[in-house]
Amino acid sequence: MKGYRDNAKNLLKSASVDIGDRIKIRKRGQEFEGLLMPRTKGEAADHIVMKLDSGYNIGIKATEDTEIEKIREGKEPEMRRHGEKVEPDADKPNISIIGTGGTVASRVDYRTGAVHPAFSASEIYNSAPEIAEIANIETNNVCNVLSENMTPELWSKVGNAVAEDLNDGADGVIVAHGTDTMSYTASALSFMLKNLSKPVVLVGSQRSSDRPSSDVTLNLTGAVSVAISNLAEVCVVMHGSTEDEFCLIHRGTKVRKCHTSRRDAFQSINDLPLGIVRDKSVRFFQDKRGRRKNGKVEVEDGFEEKVALVKIFPSIQGEIIEKLIEDGYKGIVLEGTGLGHTPESLFSGIEKAIEKNIPVAMTSQCIWGRTNMRVYSTGRDLLDLGVFPVEDMLPETALVKMMWILDKTQEMEEVQARMKENIAGEISSRTRADTFLKPKIPGEE
Amino acid sequence: MKGYRDNAKNLLKSASVDIGDRIKIRKRGQEFEGLLMPRTKGEAADHIVMKLDSGYNIGIKATEDTEIEKIREGKEPEMRRHGEKVEPDADKPNISIIGTGGTVASRVDYRTGAVHPAFSASEIYNSAPEIAEIANIETNNVCNVLSENMTPELWSKVGNAVAEDLNDGADGVIVAHGTDTMSYTASALSFMLKNLSKPVVLVGSQRSSDRPSSDVTLNLTGAVSVAISNLAEVCVVMHGSTEDEFCLIHRGTKVRKCHTSRRDAFQSINDLPLGIVRDKSVRFFQDKRGRRKNGKVEVEDGFEEKVALVKIFPSIQGEIIEKLIEDGYKGIVLEGTGLGHTPESLFSGIEKAIEKNIPVAMTSQCIWGRTNMRVYSTGRDLLDLGVFPVEDMLPETALVKMMWILDKTQEMEEVQARMKENIAGEISSRTRADTFLKPKIPGEE
Repeated sequence: MKGYRDNAKNLLKSASVDIGDRIKIRKRGQEFEGLLMPRTKGEAADHIVMKLDSGYNIGIKATEDTEIEKIREGKEPEMRRHGEKVEPDADKPNISIIGTGGTVASRVDYRTGAVHPAFSASEIYNSAPEIAEIANIETNNVCNVLSENMTPELWSKVGNAVAEDLNDGADGVIVAHGTDTMSYTASALSFMLKNLSKPVVLVGSQRSSDRPSSDVTLNLTGAVSVAISNLAEVCVVMHGSTEDEFCLIHRGTKVRKCHTSRRDAFQSINDLPLGIVRDKSVRFFQDKRGRRKNGKVEVEDGFEEKVALVKIFPSIQGEIIEKLIEDGYKGIVLEGTGLGHTPESLFSGIEKAIEKNIPVAMTSQCIWGRTNMRVYSTGRDLLDLGVFPVEDMLPETALVKMMWILDKTQEMEEVQARMKENIAGEISSRTRADTFLKPKIPGEE
Repeated sequence: MKGYRDNAKNLLKSASVDIGDRIKIRKRGQEFEGLLMPRTKGEAADHIVMKLDSGYNIGIKATEDTEIEKIREGKEPEMRRHGEKVEPDADKPNISIIGTGGTVASRVDYRTGAVHPAFSASEIYNSAPEIAEIANIETNNVCNVLSENMTPELWSKVGNAVAEDLNDGADGVIVAHGTDTMSYTASALSFMLKNLSKPVVLVGSQRSSDRPSSDVTLNLTGAVSVAISNLAEVCVVMHGSTEDEFCLIHRGTKVRKCHTSRRDAFQSINDLPLGIVRDKSVRFFQDKRGRRKNGKVEVEDGFEEKVALVKIFPSIQGEIIEKLIEDGYKGIVLEGTGLGHTPESLFSGIEKAIEKNIPVAMTSQCIWGRTNMRVYSTGRDLLDLGVFPVEDMLPETALVKMMWILDKTQEMEEVQARMKENIAGEISSRTRADTFLKPKIPGEE
């Protein structure tokens, strides 16, 4: 009765059930059927944890009105311990999962209701053991932070770990990452990894893995399927719909978390997704993509932290830019309005920044579309000051790219030239019209 | 041959055509048919301007290889001069168009290719005379700035002009506005106008009115149709598709410019549009909306300018918040990651701000979805510091709302309470699942 105590233990005992048995729990008119799981450290002792047929775990508080029925006996599920070696199957590809922290495989504390970020790569594996049927899985923890606390230093650390695993024989690497800043890390890896010869897949979860609505099983299975596919790109694999139907594969420099809570929160912007994965089968939409090949992956790591992303709004004060100069900022990415504009009140600050050799790039807060600073007089004035637009690049991607470039050179012309050069799919020369998202209009086709 | 000179004049003369005639122009394999328009001041003298059947004006440079053919004679179109009085038709509703500047009815300078912002409300009217069939139109210029240069002071000015016109007998008011910051102004008007009894419609154009692909005719016709409808809300009326099919009516506090250049750039976020207008006929989707009634409109104007919208990104430095405190900022709206998070590195700055009685509101850079700071430890920590989430409110709307509230009170609890109260449709209690935009997936239904 591994880990269970008090009420929960008594209830399970009186129903003569054991870990791994198929059971049914009735409580307040609701009925749940699934396999009884061992209680994991950190979970409240009075909750019974079961794995539903959907693959999701659920915790039910053992109270007086909780009824348990044994459906049939089962055997205790195999759990993998951290660092434990499993004999690899020579017929299966080898995948490495790098843990960074975040929601993937995190657990709800049933006492407080809050989600615990703490997890290890082996816990990730245990939360979706299905993936072992597809590939030999090695796990490796690089850090353990909530993704909002990721730093450029950790990006470099993750990038080096990815390259090491790929060069050590992994057929693909999965980076388990919190969703909040997943797209920033995806961009960082996209720029850092050179001669990329295999898939690097970022995956996360919008719900913790032991909640009934968790998306971790489909996402992880999808990620492993993509990690063994014919791809050599940094990508994000996450739910493509609110159902457990399929995942979409998004290019690392073109993806954005577009919803606070939906499982299908991630969207490709100004670009089609790279492809779709359904029932472990991968289909690519884009022929223009890196393909699996041989060769050593190299890392150009390092990011200048003193780069600011400034969102423009009416009445934004020019001093904001002057403060950044005083503070020793080395680069500025503006999230302008429309085609790439700011109020005139910002012009003098921008002028000073550029005089001090601080590059100022222009993106758009519209998110979709392309900057074009030649249409209106404001854009032309900003161009004259030395601001440079970066096509259809996402503001977040432009930030990460400028951090990466400024670590290598601070020569203004060189920075500008590299910012405007398509390095990792971050700039599309032409945007497909069907990549703009449209609402369903009630009563219209 | 009003206004034409040199090559253009000679060419028109030799073809014996006059202003208002139906003509065909052939140039470099292309053919254009339409009515010859008078040349307007500011346009290059060597361009011939014609109105196409689509209602759009086009300017064609008169060169040696330009052929002009007269199809049939016509009469000179009536143009309305600024301030000119037209006898109102007692059977038609009365609409006031307030000009603020921006692309609506602006013109391309055919010499430089740049778009001139200069225009008057009567120029707007002249660019789509169709609207006079629907209503008596009065025009009124409040300011003449590109929308990126709109200020909180001008918001108040526009709000007062709107109320004045409505209280003076207008059945609806249209505010012609550049698209860059249209949604900010729409929010400002939504909060400012009290006891709103009639429609207030913001309209703009993503292309200048004399470009063949201009959207001004459909948008203005749609705006006038909505301005005479059974609505009492501040809304944005803009193209709903890339074709000249229909416009969508968006609630002023729930709308966002989501594309730099498409005609259908405006989207309702976390909400259905209020309705649709097609062929001058308006259909509402939302029963929950203000309806036309009697009563005097009041204005609660005034905005505190010292409010900052800060977009969160990895490695954002805590000093940014401290600088805002030093600079005398009165309020801060954070555009956090995910459900409403910031890196821990920002905590001490946020704590200091709140100690100094500066309210700090949390929105999400995901754009879609609702903030929820009780799920993860970071959110709980920020709540403990005194940061308050504002549900599914757009960051831009939250900024404008806080500016408006801080002008009225700086009492922290009062500011928080009013920020969290739904005043003008800015907070939805429940978000419809079908309001999240989804991409078309190649090869899937």
